[in-house]
Amino acid sequence: MSTVAQRSRDLPQLRADTPGCQHIIHFNNAGAALPIKEVVDIQHAFLDSEALCGGYETVITETEALQLAYNELATMLNCSARNIAILQSATAAWMQVFYGIPFQSGDRILTGVHEYAANYIAFLQVAKRTGAKIEVIPETADNDVNLEALEHSIVHGQGRPALLAFTHIPTNSGRVYSAEGIGAIAKRHGVPFLLDACQSVGQMPLNVAKLGCNWLSGTSRKYLRGPRGVGFLYASDKAMQQSEPAALDMWGAEWVTGGQYRLQPGARRYEQYERCFAAVAGLGVAARYANELGVDWIWERVQELAAELRSRLRSIPGVTVHDRGRLLCGIVSFTKDGVDSAQMKAFLLKKMINVSISPMTSTRLDFEKHGLPESVVRASVHYYNSSADIEQLAQAVSDAHQ
Amino acid sequence: MSTVAQRSRDLPQLRADTPGCQHIIHFNNAGAALPIKEVVDIQHAFLDSEALCGGYETVITETEALQLAYNELATMLNCSARNIAILQSATAAWMQVFYGIPFQSGDRILTGVHEYAANYIAFLQVAKRTGAKIEVIPETADNDVNLEALEHSIVHGQGRPALLAFTHIPTNSGRVYSAEGIGAIAKRHGVPFLLDACQSVGQMPLNVAKLGCNWLSGTSRKYLRGPRGVGFLYASDKAMQQSEPAALDMWGAEWVTGGQYRLQPGARRYEQYERCFAAVAGLGVAARYANELGVDWIWERVQELAAELRSRLRSIPGVTVHDRGRLLCGIVSFTKDGVDSAQMKAFLLKKMINVSISPMTSTRLDFEKHGLPESVVRASVHYYNSSADIEQLAQAVSDAHQ
Repeated sequence: MSTVAQRSRDLPQLRADTPGCQHIIHFNNAGAALPIKEVVDIQHAFLDSEALCGGYETVITETEALQLAYNELATMLNCSARNIAILQSATAAWMQVFYGIPFQSGDRILTGVHEYAANYIAFLQVAKRTGAKIEVIPETADNDVNLEALEHSIVHGQGRPALLAFTHIPTNSGRVYSAEGIGAIAKRHGVPFLLDACQSVGQMPLNVAKLGCNWLSGTSRKYLRGPRGVGFLYASDKAMQQSEPAALDMWGAEWVTGGQYRLQPGARRYEQYERCFAAVAGLGVAARYANELGVDWIWERVQELAAELRSRLRSIPGVTVHDRGRLLCGIVSFTKDGVDSAQMKAFLLKKMINVSISPMTSTRLDFEKHGLPESVVRASVHYYNSSADIEQLAQAVSDAHQ
Repeated sequence: MSTVAQRSRDLPQLRADTPGCQHIIHFNNAGAALPIKEVVDIQHAFLDSEALCGGYETVITETEALQLAYNELATMLNCSARNIAILQSATAAWMQVFYGIPFQSGDRILTGVHEYAANYIAFLQVAKRTGAKIEVIPETADNDVNLEALEHSIVHGQGRPALLAFTHIPTNSGRVYSAEGIGAIAKRHGVPFLLDACQSVGQMPLNVAKLGCNWLSGTSRKYLRGPRGVGFLYASDKAMQQSEPAALDMWGAEWVTGGQYRLQPGARRYEQYERCFAAVAGLGVAARYANELGVDWIWERVQELAAELRSRLRSIPGVTVHDRGRLLCGIVSFTKDGVDSAQMKAFLLKKMINVSISPMTSTRLDFEKHGLPESVVRASVHYYNSSADIEQLAQAVSDAHQ
């Protein structure tokens, strides 16, 4: 960080760097944030080069632009570039780890109440396929993972604890799980730990040495403000020795003589060759922008804006803010009496305000536990949002009626 | 086809539709063909919309543009759009099928001598993981799959024949395998058949009813002339009843109550939600262009040009054309005495001519069987190549010396 120029933390400049800010009010940053102009520019240039010079030929001339994502993500996460794999999405990254773990019948997958549907469905499929069991670790009264319960389960539960699979920041409810606490327990008991950092990367500082995870999956399009269709994986050296990627092609491994394959050194083994290379180049630029701005600063700013938004929403008659947790992030979940979430979203969209909806099917256990309605509205802030944005959203929410 | 406007089959027009033709001579079509201008345009427009309106918001407003790929591929392959899944690559599509098949110890995976490394490495990994066996079906004297040997192996071989996994057109050597013959045998004996059509889709007519395959994987960037970072899968209704996709997220399945998931109807179950949507839109435009031009016509034109190229290369002293097979396609493999393939590629690139290299590690069994050198040069033609392109390539190959 000391070697890179400090980006301007000036709001007008940040908004000028963001073409979408001149067009809409965007509170769907936890879905896909508005990309940085430089990110869009490099994608355009990359696509034009592919069209003029050829796809494979561009990959060769643009080696540096493609390497940038590895280097900047390594800087961001405090690891080596050889521990970074770039995949087609965070889901693809997570799957390359999860489906590669050789679960046996009776093995336990330990996870959280707030776990995201994509992951939970994968747990269910693997449980059916292998006989592994899913165990949901309860939460503390203030909605963090119950670390004592987790450790107790690892030591005293029946069946080998084969994997700790937790989402760092759930898709709704605004809370942040104590990933470092899970990581410390994982290390202490030698249980592999897969962290889904889809919502946390780019939003809050992540240091894999402190997190103690074996793998961390993340996406480009959310808080990193990069392109769609690209994600990444961090894999520790130890993790790479323990299990193979779920699926291999001739990029992740080499076909050597005698009916053998040899895994590539480093995290490249998790990749497949074909990806949207324009998006890979864009991810590099996005990660560099975040590093130059400073993720510590981003995290402070996002927390402040989210607190401002929650407070403003709470002041509106009939509005309930559903966020809960000891540490809250940029994701704000709410409902308004008499206005269902789909109506609210449509109403806001007409006023050029983007929000999203978190349905029960996204985090079913959490919704059921807290008796939430079928869906809640999710307004997620990023550092380029302004107090004026918040005021316009609050005004519109206030105006929304059945 | 009768309902769509016929595209111009006029070479100057086809080249004018292809920005790269004004810039380079492209014989790396089997790597990634030069995209059509309309394809690049829609990607640019899509990215700009994401930047201005938001990523998720664009997916909703561009539903039709995203549906186009499903419809046009269904038209091209003679199936319903519900049997098409769009994935991040052909590799991802192939893997979603292959790694989802519940192989038991002793099961046999039947494949060809020319099989591509990406697939073969996956066979090796699954063989190690499950105890399944790989069986390579021999070829006829004219280098097609030996259908009698295949059927004999299915009936008399030891161990359940669990899957026929064949590549339609190998990455080098120019030949086309008799996929319909394999399909007929697969049907007769009720053995699932996964066809890798990476090189054949867009190059030659494909009709899944005639091919008799359960699944067919294909890519956008090669003969379809679409964007990088996107591919597709055809899955028959019967195939979808037989085995689950290798990996699921909350797009391929829904998390229903009681710890259950429900697969989506149709081939969407093979997809993951996150993809490069700009590339999906581009794939639709590319497939429509091919349909309007007529894949029958493309196939005739590609075969003619490839024959012309082979003939011209054979006339150059020291050049050996390595293609062999009863049916040859647009892929031309050659070497020149005293010039290694990497040197040749670099020499041609300086003259603004793109070719690629097929190394032994891509199709090891084939290289070993035929005693080929460590690598061969691959010059693959597309319909927009001209006789002038061929003459320039031949002249340059002629000039190339150690």
